Amino acid sequence: MRIARFSLDGTVGFGVVEGDATTEGGPVLDIIKGHPFADFERSGQKLPLSKVRLLPPVLPNKVVAVGRNYAEHARELGHEVPETPVLFFKPSTSVVGPGDPVVYPAFSSELHHEAELAVVIGRLCKDVPRERVKDVVLGYTCANDVTARDVQRAENQWARSKGFDSSCPLGPWTETELDPSDLALMCTVNGEQRQLGRTSEMVRSIEDLVVLVSEAMTLLPGDVILTGTPAGVGPLNVGDEVAVTIEGIGTLTNKVIKRD
Amino acid sequence: MRIARFSLDGTVGFGVVEGDATTEGGPVLDIIKGHPFADFERSGQKLPLSKVRLLPPVLPNKVVAVGRNYAEHARELGHEVPETPVLFFKPSTSVVGPGDPVVYPAFSSELHHEAELAVVIGRLCKDVPRERVKDVVLGYTCANDVTARDVQRAENQWARSKGFDSSCPLGPWTETELDPSDLALMCTVNGEQRQLGRTSEMVRSIEDLVVLVSEAMTLLPGDVILTGTPAGVGPLNVGDEVAVTIEGIGTLTNKVIKRD
Repeated sequence: MRIARFSLDGTVGFGVVEGDATTEGGPVLDIIKGHPFADFERSGQKLPLSKVRLLPPVLPNKVVAVGRNYAEHARELGHEVPETPVLFFKPSTSVVGPGDPVVYPAFSSELHHEAELAVVIGRLCKDVPRERVKDVVLGYTCANDVTARDVQRAENQWARSKGFDSSCPLGPWTETELDPSDLALMCTVNGEQRQLGRTSEMVRSIEDLVVLVSEAMTLLPGDVILTGTPAGVGPLNVGDEVAVTIEGIGTLTNKVIKRD
Repeated sequence: MRIARFSLDGTVGFGVVEGDATTEGGPVLDIIKGHPFADFERSGQKLPLSKVRLLPPVLPNKVVAVGRNYAEHARELGHEVPETPVLFFKPSTSVVGPGDPVVYPAFSSELHHEAELAVVIGRLCKDVPRERVKDVVLGYTCANDVTARDVQRAENQWARSKGFDSSCPLGPWTETELDPSDLALMCTVNGEQRQLGRTSEMVRSIEDLVVLVSEAMTLLPGDVILTGTPAGVGPLNVGDEVAVTIEGIGTLTNKVIKRD
């Protein structure tokens, strides 16, 4: 099931995506009564997907991300795969949705894309045992861990380089029925392939990450865990259209703009 | 003005603290109508401070903290004062209030106290010019940037070592009328002085920090900026009572416990 968050005429809600581009009349959203973090009913009220604005599929309180979780990517930046995890936060204010602009920050001149599989947490949890990880996961979406690489190199901690406004595009929806263990993920810039990998190449698995993170901190419904990026990261320039596509989920597209 | 957040019999609210320990009958809370992030009225309904439970004075969406912002503390951990800022996040789930337990995390065996002045943001803001910093600050409170020092040393980024549940005690209230430029701040453990410094020793000032952080990210009402800790950091053990006192604000006390 694909659960999207949307706005239309000032109303914000969740809906289940039915159909796809091949469906006659195009895909529709069946509006959910309530929210997807508990049992919910579909209202039967359907909107053409083309008529709504898709929002970030959830409103994370926090995004916890892992660095250097694909060996080839660690090496392309001159690092080994770390023995201890590289965990960092992206704040709620960094999250934007599909189609939203990524605003090139004034304090950087080297913005990079990082395509990642995002795990959407469905319930409040702490100290999740490995065998219960699937019970706390609502589903999966696409993420772009946009990084000010020059600032990241210069600063010991990554709050500014990876935490700036619009540095965390998420979307287009949360896919709740998916085996995430071996999915192709790809990043294109202006239609040209830049990153291509498979989630099976992760050094630490989704189970590892949920166990590790929840050992330290409570996860809340809507929190997101980013699982690292495969090799091929590279620059984003103003005007670029960057797209993250993950097998079985869909494509998250954002355009890079500059504010005056 | 001292603005506390409290709970009593299931009600949560804000109140203005009137009087102190020398006041006949003890200090009271004058309950606020609404919240302190906009013009508010006092209700005139007063509660003895001793009757309420004080909560974290605000509910931060994010806490942004700075490392190595006092030269002597940087040196005691074997670092120079960094040329570029060391900024990191503590998530909302790390925040606890005055009197709340700090739970010793199972994944660490070297917990440290770090007494810090906390800046409470009063309004939504981005790209704050230096001369407007005072307009976006609601006030100041005490913070303890509790750190799993062994994990911090082992891991490249500090999300687990400084982001675990209960690693961010805040309180006892927000002081809104205070010149923060040269205040004594102290940390005691079981009544014994461990840290003593003055906010005038900060490498980057409060203005510097608000400008720097807000250049990258939107700050929300209730967000908190921690301003670094002076020299003297050291271990916390289960059973310890740790107290952060800042001149003109008050004392934030927490006990370290272990969960089975």
